[in-house]
Amino acid sequence: MKGARSLPPVARAIVGGDRRALARAITAIENGDPGAGPVLKALFSRARQVPIVGVAGPLGVGKSSLLNLLVGHLRGLGRTVAVIAVDPSSPFSGGSVLGDRIRFEGRADDPGVFFRSMASRGAAGGVAAATLEAARVLAAAGFDIILVETVGSGQVDVAIREIATTRVVVLVPHLGDEVQTLKAGLFEIADVFCVNKTDLPGADSAQRDLADLVAMFPAGSGWVPRIVGTSTTVPRGIAELWEAIQAHESFLDSSGTRRAGERHRLATEIVGLVRDRVGRELTHQLERDADLRRLLDRVVAREIDPRTAAERLRPTVRRQS
Amino acid sequence: MKGARSLPPVARAIVGGDRRALARAITAIENGDPGAGPVLKALFSRARQVPIVGVAGPLGVGKSSLLNLLVGHLRGLGRTVAVIAVDPSSPFSGGSVLGDRIRFEGRADDPGVFFRSMASRGAAGGVAAATLEAARVLAAAGFDIILVETVGSGQVDVAIREIATTRVVVLVPHLGDEVQTLKAGLFEIADVFCVNKTDLPGADSAQRDLADLVAMFPAGSGWVPRIVGTSTTVPRGIAELWEAIQAHESFLDSSGTRRAGERHRLATEIVGLVRDRVGRELTHQLERDADLRRLLDRVVAREIDPRTAAERLRPTVRRQS
Repeated sequence: MKGARSLPPVARAIVGGDRRALARAITAIENGDPGAGPVLKALFSRARQVPIVGVAGPLGVGKSSLLNLLVGHLRGLGRTVAVIAVDPSSPFSGGSVLGDRIRFEGRADDPGVFFRSMASRGAAGGVAAATLEAARVLAAAGFDIILVETVGSGQVDVAIREIATTRVVVLVPHLGDEVQTLKAGLFEIADVFCVNKTDLPGADSAQRDLADLVAMFPAGSGWVPRIVGTSTTVPRGIAELWEAIQAHESFLDSSGTRRAGERHRLATEIVGLVRDRVGRELTHQLERDADLRRLLDRVVAREIDPRTAAERLRPTVRRQS
Repeated sequence: MKGARSLPPVARAIVGGDRRALARAITAIENGDPGAGPVLKALFSRARQVPIVGVAGPLGVGKSSLLNLLVGHLRGLGRTVAVIAVDPSSPFSGGSVLGDRIRFEGRADDPGVFFRSMASRGAAGGVAAATLEAARVLAAAGFDIILVETVGSGQVDVAIREIATTRVVVLVPHLGDEVQTLKAGLFEIADVFCVNKTDLPGADSAQRDLADLVAMFPAGSGWVPRIVGTSTTVPRGIAELWEAIQAHESFLDSSGTRRAGERHRLATEIVGLVRDRVGRELTHQLERDADLRRLLDRVVAREIDPRTAAERLRPTVRRQS
C-alpha cells in the first residue's frame, strides 16, 4: 500500500504544478508509451472529479473562438482551465499536426490556462481513452475545468460522448446538406446546444427549430437539453453558455446520475484497454503462431471466410488470481 | 463441403442480380444483424477481387460531384459500378441519415449502377469491416468496380485505408487552416491525389506543391502517388483520374503487392471481429460476473486504477479444435 506522499517523481512534479512534466506525460499517453502507466496509476486516486466539458460540432461553426471566449470568462471567475483539442486526423504523423498552436494568444503567461492538442496514435484503448487519461492528469495537476474540443469528426464526437460529463454541441443558423448529417449524429449527444453566430440572420428560427426538436425527444435521464445563443464577434451569450453547463453539472449531482456515469466511463475504459490488448496480441499471433497462421492462410485461399475464422478463435477473459 | 450451387436462397438471389436482396443484405451488415453471417459466408468465395477505390477528403472539396462524373465515365466504358458512401456521423440513429439519397439522378433506372450509404451502428468489427463486407457482397453481385466515399471524417478515412485497394485523396487549391490538418493525415494514405476545382485560381501551384511533397516522401512500396487535376464544372480530368486509379491497380498486380494487401486486410478483419466480440462479452461480464463486478467496484472506489484493472483481466485467444 502506497501513501499519497510516495508518488513517483514525475507524478509529484505534475501535482506540484510542473507544466513541462505535465506536457510530457500527455505526450506519453498520446504515443501509447508504456512509461505513462506508472504516472497514470499513481495519479488516478489523486484526480478530483472535475467537469469534463466536451465541445463538438461541424467544422466552421466557430468552436475555437467560442472556447477562447469561454476560457476568458472562466478566468474572470477565478477558475483554472485546461483545453484539450482532439485531433483525430493524423494518426500516422505521430502527434497532432495542429501541435500546440498558439491559439490562446495573450494567455501564454497565464499558469491558470493550459492548452494541448492530442492525436491518438498508438494510444492504448483509442482516442477516447487517451483523452480521458489526459483529462485525469490535468485534474490531478489542479485544473478546475477541462474543456475537450473535437476537430470536426463524427466518430470522435461519439468517443467524446463516452468521456465528457457535459456535452456541448455547437451549431450555426444555416448549414449545408452534408453538415445536416453531422447535426443528426450530434443531436443525441447534446446536454447543451449552442447556436453560435447569432449575429447572422436566421438565428432565432434556428433556436426555435432546435427547441421543437428537443421537445420531440423525451429525455430519458430527466435532463432537458438547454439551448443557448452565442456570438463570438459581438461577443454575447458566453456567460449563459457557462451557466447552462453548470446547470447540467448540478443536475448530475442532484439526480445521482454522476456516479452512474463515472462507473460507465470506467467500465468503457477498462474494456477499451482489454480490447486493444487482444487486438495487438492477435495481430501478432496471426503471423507468428503456426496454428493461427494456417487459419489465415485458409482465409486468404478463400477456403473459409473471415467470420468463420473469427468464430474459431475463442477469446476468453479471466481475472488473474 | 458445399458446392457453389448449394448457395442459400438470399445469396443466390444476390448473385442472380436481385437488387432488393442485395440492399437488405447490406442493411443486415450495417445493423450487425446475425442474419448477415450465413450470406456473407456463402458469398465470400464467390466475390471476385475487384478494385475497391476509396475516395477520401475534407468536406466541401466536391467528392460527390466527382464521383458522379466518374460513375458516368465508367458506365461509358461499359463497366458496372457500386458506390458506398460511408457516413460515420450517426451511429445512434440506426442507419445512415443520408439514406439512399437521390444523388445519382438519371441513373435510377440503370442496373449497372448501385448507390448505397452506410452508417456503422452495431456493425461487427466496426465501420471498416462492415464496408469491406458490403464491398464483397457487391462484388459477388457482379459489380466491376466499388467506389467507397467517406463523408468528411479523419478516423473513418483511416479505416478506409484498411479496405481500399486504391486510395484517392481529393483536395482543392485553397483550404483553411483546420483543413490543413486533415490534409496531413490524408497525405500518407494517398495512392492518387486529385486536385479538384482546377477552374479556381491557384490550382497549378497546388499541384506543384503536392508534387514537391510527394517527392519528399520516399514511397516504401515503389509506387509514386499520381497527381491528377480535375474540375466538375467544366468538366475535365475524369478520364485521367480513372487512368491513374487503373495504373495503381496494375502496379498492385505487377509488383505482387496485391496479395500481401489482401492478406493484411483479411487479418485486420479477423482481428476486428474478435476484438469486437471481446468488447461485447467483457462489457456484459463487468456487470454480470460477480468477480468482475467487484473489480469494477474497486476502480469506481478509486482503490485501483483502470490500467491495473485491465492488466488483471487476462484475455487469451485460442483456436477451437
